[in-house]
Amino acid sequence: MKTIDELGERETIERILGLITPMPSNPLPPWEDASAIALSEGLVAVLKTDMLVWSTDVPPGMRAVDVGWKAVVMNFSDLAAKGVRPQAFLASLALPRGTPIQVVEELIRGMDEAARHYDAYFLGGDTNEGGEIIVSGVAYGVAERGRLMRRSGARPGDMLASTGPFGATAAAFKILLEGLEAPGDLRRRLVEAVYRPKARVMEGVALAESGVVTASIDSSDGLAMSLHDLSKSSGVGFRVERLPLSEEAAEFAELHGLDSWELALYGGEEYELIFTLRPGDVDVVRETLRRVGCDLVEIGVATEDRRLIYVDGGEERPIGRGWEHFKG
Amino acid sequence: MKTIDELGERETIERILGLITPMPSNPLPPWEDASAIALSEGLVAVLKTDMLVWSTDVPPGMRAVDVGWKAVVMNFSDLAAKGVRPQAFLASLALPRGTPIQVVEELIRGMDEAARHYDAYFLGGDTNEGGEIIVSGVAYGVAERGRLMRRSGARPGDMLASTGPFGATAAAFKILLEGLEAPGDLRRRLVEAVYRPKARVMEGVALAESGVVTASIDSSDGLAMSLHDLSKSSGVGFRVERLPLSEEAAEFAELHGLDSWELALYGGEEYELIFTLRPGDVDVVRETLRRVGCDLVEIGVATEDRRLIYVDGGEERPIGRGWEHFKG
Repeated sequence: MKTIDELGERETIERILGLITPMPSNPLPPWEDASAIALSEGLVAVLKTDMLVWSTDVPPGMRAVDVGWKAVVMNFSDLAAKGVRPQAFLASLALPRGTPIQVVEELIRGMDEAARHYDAYFLGGDTNEGGEIIVSGVAYGVAERGRLMRRSGARPGDMLASTGPFGATAAAFKILLEGLEAPGDLRRRLVEAVYRPKARVMEGVALAESGVVTASIDSSDGLAMSLHDLSKSSGVGFRVERLPLSEEAAEFAELHGLDSWELALYGGEEYELIFTLRPGDVDVVRETLRRVGCDLVEIGVATEDRRLIYVDGGEERPIGRGWEHFKG
Repeated sequence: MKTIDELGERETIERILGLITPMPSNPLPPWEDASAIALSEGLVAVLKTDMLVWSTDVPPGMRAVDVGWKAVVMNFSDLAAKGVRPQAFLASLALPRGTPIQVVEELIRGMDEAARHYDAYFLGGDTNEGGEIIVSGVAYGVAERGRLMRRSGARPGDMLASTGPFGATAAAFKILLEGLEAPGDLRRRLVEAVYRPKARVMEGVALAESGVVTASIDSSDGLAMSLHDLSKSSGVGFRVERLPLSEEAAEFAELHGLDSWELALYGGEEYELIFTLRPGDVDVVRETLRRVGCDLVEIGVATEDRRLIYVDGGEERPIGRGWEHFKG
């Protein structure tokens, strides 16, 4: 009998989705960042649940208050990718016996702080006994059905863009997990990206309100995997023509002779929004993001040919899927 | 530094609630079965998240399809206790590497089956890598704010009642965990209560619609603990005057010379609703439940004196709190 690590997370999810009775007139189809349920008057409730598992998701040096913060960001980022303003956060906690109450209190403080940072409320949840610390979060928000951004609307010729550059978390994991070094200030800025990630909530809401985004996803599984998911849902390919690498990641790559594309494409735990738009709407989108303090990053173009490639020094290379749960 | 097992779950939760920024005009206060957020026109969205941890929540012989079913029941039961019809279920799964895909598929089938049984839809969720199988569920429904049943409304003199008798799961755990025996048919009926629990969804919705229930809670933490929680929120005591023991549990108690009150009070994982009403409304409530195929079980009375006692053969005895996460 096959195990989930033989199949990988994406095929496991595909099998799961095949077993679920579809909800009629579902506002967001399966294989999306979040789920939605119709309310009255064209409104939808949008829900997301995502779990933070200490043994696999918490790198060395991360404090419990940061873990709580990140549990909120993970869930709010998926609402942001659909253009939904989160109103509430809940969490189910698994806690091993012997956990110091102070660790629990720090987790809670981090969740409350993050929820308030995004103008939402932490409404509590549930505590359970388990073998390791797990924070299973829930994000809730309400949006206009017609304004939801989906993974499925990208068309050939659309511009591919994001709310920020990539690679800082991939570099930080090399510092935290593989022991690579970096000068103090660079190190601090890189690990901050892992310890205190930000969800692009205002950006996502503004993009949805602009009405010109054709498809959107968050980049939590890494740029490469997110492009694969966007490609699958939209039925297009992507050609990444500009290396969207953060300054810090570039400095780190230079320092250690690392492949810049690898850092930008195959990281993860980075919460930018990746989206598409008609090239003619680029000024509208740039101005929309500017108003919430964000620079538009142009990455490439959606193509009829369904391949995913990046162009490095004039040469075309295929984009792999990158890291996947269970596998590797 | 104190650990959570020194404090116990209830004090841990109390500390947690003290750290959370309260949401203004919260439709359901903290220390409730579920959380609520105001929508328009007197409606509220109601959310619950509760986690099923394989190592602590799954007794021997329970199949993955039953585990999926139970994860839904746990969450829907809390909505039912507030009088809310669940519309949707989501789940975050932790799965260890090496988990057979068939186990995952059975979990999903159980969740889909349970959601559909209660006329709701399973909308998917998220998969993660973890050390053991964990199903963190989310229930969602919409209700009229004015119809929500709370833990806090019981008044001295109110009748204490439930949607069913207790003790079957406590007996079943003695069979499954301690190896006690029972004749085939009795054994089957008892373990069925653990493997295939039912949430009192129609009953909870009907009770809320009757408008005469003064306080309500579900009995998932056991009758004794639920009475303590109801007592704390309502500021009343309870006098349990009739032993609410199921026929099967009574037969099992007789067979093994077990204390019937112990079985009824200190079990758990039983999903009845425990509620209070004015004695003059008992006929309305009995008829309300009868219409959804449920018999009202009269248990006792709410008292001004805040003690919790049960009356056994004319003698008053205190009701302890029973089992608690982390402790014991």
